[in-house]
Amino acid sequence: MSKTSSPSSSPPRVVVVGGGFGGLSVTRTLRNAPCQVFLFDRQNHHLFQPLLYQVATAALSPADIAQPIRSIFRRQGNVQVVLGEVESVGLARRIIHVGEEEVPYDWLVLAPGVTHAYFGNDGWAIRAPGLKTVDDALEIRRRVLLAFEEAELEDDLEAREAKLTFVIVGGGPTGVELAGALREIAAQTIPRDFRRVDTSTARIILMEGQDRLLPAMSRRASARALRDLERMGVEVRLGALVTDMDDDTVTVGEERFPAANVIWAAGVQGSPLASTLEVELDRQGRVMVEPDCSVPGHPEVFVLGDLANLTDPKTGRSVPGVAQGALQMGRFVGGVILEALARGEPAPVRRSFHYVDKGNMATIGRARAVADIGELSFGGFFAWVVWSTVHVFYLVGFRNRLLVMVNWAWQWLIQARGARLITGNPRPRLTKQADL
Amino acid sequence: MSKTSSPSSSPPRVVVVGGGFGGLSVTRTLRNAPCQVFLFDRQNHHLFQPLLYQVATAALSPADIAQPIRSIFRRQGNVQVVLGEVESVGLARRIIHVGEEEVPYDWLVLAPGVTHAYFGNDGWAIRAPGLKTVDDALEIRRRVLLAFEEAELEDDLEAREAKLTFVIVGGGPTGVELAGALREIAAQTIPRDFRRVDTSTARIILMEGQDRLLPAMSRRASARALRDLERMGVEVRLGALVTDMDDDTVTVGEERFPAANVIWAAGVQGSPLASTLEVELDRQGRVMVEPDCSVPGHPEVFVLGDLANLTDPKTGRSVPGVAQGALQMGRFVGGVILEALARGEPAPVRRSFHYVDKGNMATIGRARAVADIGELSFGGFFAWVVWSTVHVFYLVGFRNRLLVMVNWAWQWLIQARGARLITGNPRPRLTKQADL
Repeated sequence: MSKTSSPSSSPPRVVVVGGGFGGLSVTRTLRNAPCQVFLFDRQNHHLFQPLLYQVATAALSPADIAQPIRSIFRRQGNVQVVLGEVESVGLARRIIHVGEEEVPYDWLVLAPGVTHAYFGNDGWAIRAPGLKTVDDALEIRRRVLLAFEEAELEDDLEAREAKLTFVIVGGGPTGVELAGALREIAAQTIPRDFRRVDTSTARIILMEGQDRLLPAMSRRASARALRDLERMGVEVRLGALVTDMDDDTVTVGEERFPAANVIWAAGVQGSPLASTLEVELDRQGRVMVEPDCSVPGHPEVFVLGDLANLTDPKTGRSVPGVAQGALQMGRFVGGVILEALARGEPAPVRRSFHYVDKGNMATIGRARAVADIGELSFGGFFAWVVWSTVHVFYLVGFRNRLLVMVNWAWQWLIQARGARLITGNPRPRLTKQADL
Repeated sequence: MSKTSSPSSSPPRVVVVGGGFGGLSVTRTLRNAPCQVFLFDRQNHHLFQPLLYQVATAALSPADIAQPIRSIFRRQGNVQVVLGEVESVGLARRIIHVGEEEVPYDWLVLAPGVTHAYFGNDGWAIRAPGLKTVDDALEIRRRVLLAFEEAELEDDLEAREAKLTFVIVGGGPTGVELAGALREIAAQTIPRDFRRVDTSTARIILMEGQDRLLPAMSRRASARALRDLERMGVEVRLGALVTDMDDDTVTVGEERFPAANVIWAAGVQGSPLASTLEVELDRQGRVMVEPDCSVPGHPEVFVLGDLANLTDPKTGRSVPGVAQGALQMGRFVGGVILEALARGEPAPVRRSFHYVDKGNMATIGRARAVADIGELSFGGFFAWVVWSTVHVFYLVGFRNRLLVMVNWAWQWLIQARGARLITGNPRPRLTKQADL
């Protein structure tokens, strides 16, 4: 690779920031393009986020839903994958800053995603972790499992009840799926493992600020989700805005909930990277992009996925921050770059992106789901079967990694390693209080 | 459970410290005994340590070889599993100390295992992690994977070579298995994933202080292991004692090895718990136990597994610190306690333990192994098949958890969660140095 090559000389340089659904799909689209793609991510793995809640609830291992970005592009010769965090963008000079490095680009595609937003109460972050990364999921799993261990050793009844109370803030898909899974763990998976506490008495409280769960889905789906969750024993509070939190309580207006465990599934805000662009952002810190996903005044720079605020001119609806949106934007922007490369000039492109809504789904517990597909809205076991099928289908790339036992037994044959993701390792917190 | 019940009143209390092979086997043996068993471990899971090196080398996920101790004893009603660290033992008062708690016992079984020994150079611990726990394995995995990422971004040739040099200290089974697996990763699994470095040039250096690898096995096995590893491209140094380490070199006498990565598979020392017994310990800090595994002068206290220094009177050989030894001691001691309970008195028992050596094995790379079984010593692919079979057989308890994908797809049916172990989560270290 040439030393800080001036963009003009070597093949056109496309810098992609973020190895999520958007970043992968734009990079794949440039498969045979006459350009050099640099794909930056601060993790070494792509994460299948739709199943991350299952890692947080101990159903899957991180490696089952994560894949090294390098191995994904092993056979795509024009891609250089770089483990590193992009700190800022210099639009005028067409460079990005990574550590002390300046990396030049001809085309820039930003798909760094979003992070949690605590509505100005950043102090809540330690108390109420969110769920975006593998590390987030492992932290939530650690807290959930420790909560039951601590409850088992707690003789004080009030303290024990607090330890067995889980508050989930945010009634979107993540909140709904977490609530169902936690209720299942407490009521079905582990009760017989404990001797002193009845884990099935654990309270799972799901709080949503709006008047219904899954606000992005149909009212029918919302109603169904509410009914199914309540039947499972989840306490759902609608129109409930968290006003305060301390070490052992969560406050909603006048009401105080003694709860040792809080999970944040509410607001998101754009990656800090967006603010370095010095262009217009919306209230969530997302970039107001042109109809072709480009940054106003910079046809060579695109923003994809959750970080893009884009209203589809055809439908007048804004593109939702879901995997489908990112994948479609990635393919579109890849196509735009391909055309420009073919024409040999990065001329402004004014074709506009249109989002195809393939439907919305959310699981509720282990054998139910709700789904909106086109005009159709349905739920229950059948919806869960559809949900499973769709996710297994999208997971296909990972399936050989999921069959870990087989993977191991036959590893000498197939030359794959299933757990190549990087996470850390402090000691677990220990606890001991009861009279034994 | 009664508050700090005086031992005499309630059913006899058997306190077991450690949920490894020894602790599990003694507890299982007391399955139907008229006693209350308290099983303490500082982790919530039992670990199948023989496969831990595969977690460290990214072949398996932690959950594949770990199982919550609670779920193992779900159906054994006389067991109370406690997550907590036992700090000391009061032999005279018949209590153990856990946090601020004193827990009384009638019978005590200590099976806390051993930890790494750096031969008085504890400063090496940070530089050269050992492999005993899931956290150890994840740390080694993290370092190994990051080393290749850093090498990819390193322009200075010397620094790059150091990052691609892995020194493994200790030529026992763990060292041999790690060396083979690392060589495989570098030479076979990942080369096509990288663009700038040729990972197959990575040096894997295995250092053993004695004159042969696998000193506990037959000379034939040692020779075979040496030959196979060298054929794979592993550099083996025999009679090599590490005399010093700093951030980028490992020193062996006069020779200095530039190596960014060091893994410690050499010495072990008994759990600190042993020293609180105030009885005779050997140089490794292991307890010199009576022929029945009891602590001299305390027929009601037993030490099992790696922490016990016991010479089999029949063979005159000392019982090795392997899973088989711990399992057999556990069954034996369980039997001794059962008899005493039947007789209704904790009278001294003088039947002595005899170790049945079922053989020794070690894998070398992905399709080879060496094995000593009875007088027989063999190696190669056949030995590997035997090794795999034996390990899959012992893993049987975990197999349903290993089939994670199936586990997930059918979870609504079988009610199991495969990843219930507790680990932590700091951010991965990021790195960026190259000219891109």
